[in-house]
Amino acid sequence: MSNLQVLLVAGTHGNEINAPWVFDQWKQNQDLIDRFGLKVISVIGNPLAFEKGKRYLHRDLNRSFSKDLLNSENHNDLEISRAKELLGLYGPNGKNASQIAIDFHSTTACMGSSLVIYGRRPADLAIVSLIQHRIGLPVYLHEGNPSQKGFLVEAWPCGFVVEIGPVPQGSLNSRIIQQTFQALKICLEEISKSINSKSCFPDKLIVHRHLKSIDFPRDSSGEPIAYIHGDLDGRDWQPIKNGYPLFEYINGDKVRLSDNSFSDEVFPVFINEAAYAEKNIAMSFTKKEVWRFDDCWKDAFYALINS
Amino acid sequence: MSNLQVLLVAGTHGNEINAPWVFDQWKQNQDLIDRFGLKVISVIGNPLAFEKGKRYLHRDLNRSFSKDLLNSENHNDLEISRAKELLGLYGPNGKNASQIAIDFHSTTACMGSSLVIYGRRPADLAIVSLIQHRIGLPVYLHEGNPSQKGFLVEAWPCGFVVEIGPVPQGSLNSRIIQQTFQALKICLEEISKSINSKSCFPDKLIVHRHLKSIDFPRDSSGEPIAYIHGDLDGRDWQPIKNGYPLFEYINGDKVRLSDNSFSDEVFPVFINEAAYAEKNIAMSFTKKEVWRFDDCWKDAFYALINS
Repeated sequence: MSNLQVLLVAGTHGNEINAPWVFDQWKQNQDLIDRFGLKVISVIGNPLAFEKGKRYLHRDLNRSFSKDLLNSENHNDLEISRAKELLGLYGPNGKNASQIAIDFHSTTACMGSSLVIYGRRPADLAIVSLIQHRIGLPVYLHEGNPSQKGFLVEAWPCGFVVEIGPVPQGSLNSRIIQQTFQALKICLEEISKSINSKSCFPDKLIVHRHLKSIDFPRDSSGEPIAYIHGDLDGRDWQPIKNGYPLFEYINGDKVRLSDNSFSDEVFPVFINEAAYAEKNIAMSFTKKEVWRFDDCWKDAFYALINS
Repeated sequence: MSNLQVLLVAGTHGNEINAPWVFDQWKQNQDLIDRFGLKVISVIGNPLAFEKGKRYLHRDLNRSFSKDLLNSENHNDLEISRAKELLGLYGPNGKNASQIAIDFHSTTACMGSSLVIYGRRPADLAIVSLIQHRIGLPVYLHEGNPSQKGFLVEAWPCGFVVEIGPVPQGSLNSRIIQQTFQALKICLEEISKSINSKSCFPDKLIVHRHLKSIDFPRDSSGEPIAYIHGDLDGRDWQPIKNGYPLFEYINGDKVRLSDNSFSDEVFPVFINEAAYAEKNIAMSFTKKEVWRFDDCWKDAFYALINS
């Protein structure tokens, strides 16, 4: 039998409460979600922040897994300490080693259910291909963004984020709970099928590759002076071209998409995510690409789960 | 000329950022909103909480205007201090006395734009009648709820809340900004028309009278164990009867409306407002009533604005 262990994380951001709630229900009723014979550990990523209903206490835990922070001696930073603790407990070389990490998030943006990967690790591409093939979720490839790094799942050999929205922070929501519940079950089932060599890999993977993020128009003191244009609100994953209105001033003036590097349509994501305003991100643009499934992805994934 | 001064408040809850944003734009461009010749003061209710993006620091400012709290000597409580300060500055007997207070809020619930009054003060009933007659907003009469008291506008001779949703906390939103902007202009215009004796009072007022609030089903440790049923989500202001599903457990079990005191349909409001979970409120029920406009309301309102 495989020694694979899957780490499931919820509440990496303490104010995203739907996935932790699902985990809690599961804890109380182990039959709720079939483990499909997998060894699974589920944890609250940032329990101190979760208890306070805050995204984080000292810094974003989901940006705290970069090598420089993990190697730092900042003992007073709760999130760096927690990142080290999680790795010590469940990291690939931890006491209770896990090889795959799945991190469940929610967003205030109208993203529906989606998967996020960081970089192009073959095993990541294999598992998200399986899930996309099964239920069609979009895959956001977040790469080439030096200002955003140190994501939790990057510290495991294989891992991805399940991102579901829209839902306000701190609010349980029927739809988000059901979507989290479904995504969780399908992730486990697809991994389980791989162990039993029953996976049905597709011949292609559709990725939304990160191009860039843009900020709100701001005044000299840093305050936003325009808001997301009503026409764009809620249009995550839907293509727009140069000329499309992005922001609106209260007097009706518009800021339109105008980027010479965008020769064709781009697909905005994380439009108006409440937590990203502090990161100076009003939305991110992606390019939709169809990639041929590469057998080396499958090989890397099989090597991992059978290691 | 009337000595009337109108106090406009935004950011009484520091994480409700749309109305403060509108006020800020207005500050920078005084022509943005016609004052209709009125004396108007606009303030951020809880600037310290607003700066931190939090609803409040020590306690809910919008429950801090009860007599017992205002008379207390708790100098360390920032919100009680701020309540006293606001009254000292702009209260009916303050340095810069205002007679009408309008407090702009947002909610995560699907309330649309609505007006909230506390109790049955004749002048309040007069002004909300004018606004409802003009643009049809529902009026939530919040009364008979001893666990919730000390609302800001109650400390002024006349006042009401403008409540607009849905919007996540901490998120600027096109629709909410436009609705706040419109509501603000119409409030000022209607008050101005009254000063010039040009008001057109209706012959009736439709109120949604508060009946009771209910909490989420919780376990022995106080955690919610069910969520708002998907069928009810977003149905604020829409009538339901006994038997309608209110909550759902993750296994699909439902909690249905079953209240012997409800002989007929009731109208839920503030369904799943994120900030109310800590107050043990999952939603409130109201009864829709049509009241005949009483001339004493008008008399009280005219007496106030011409005092």
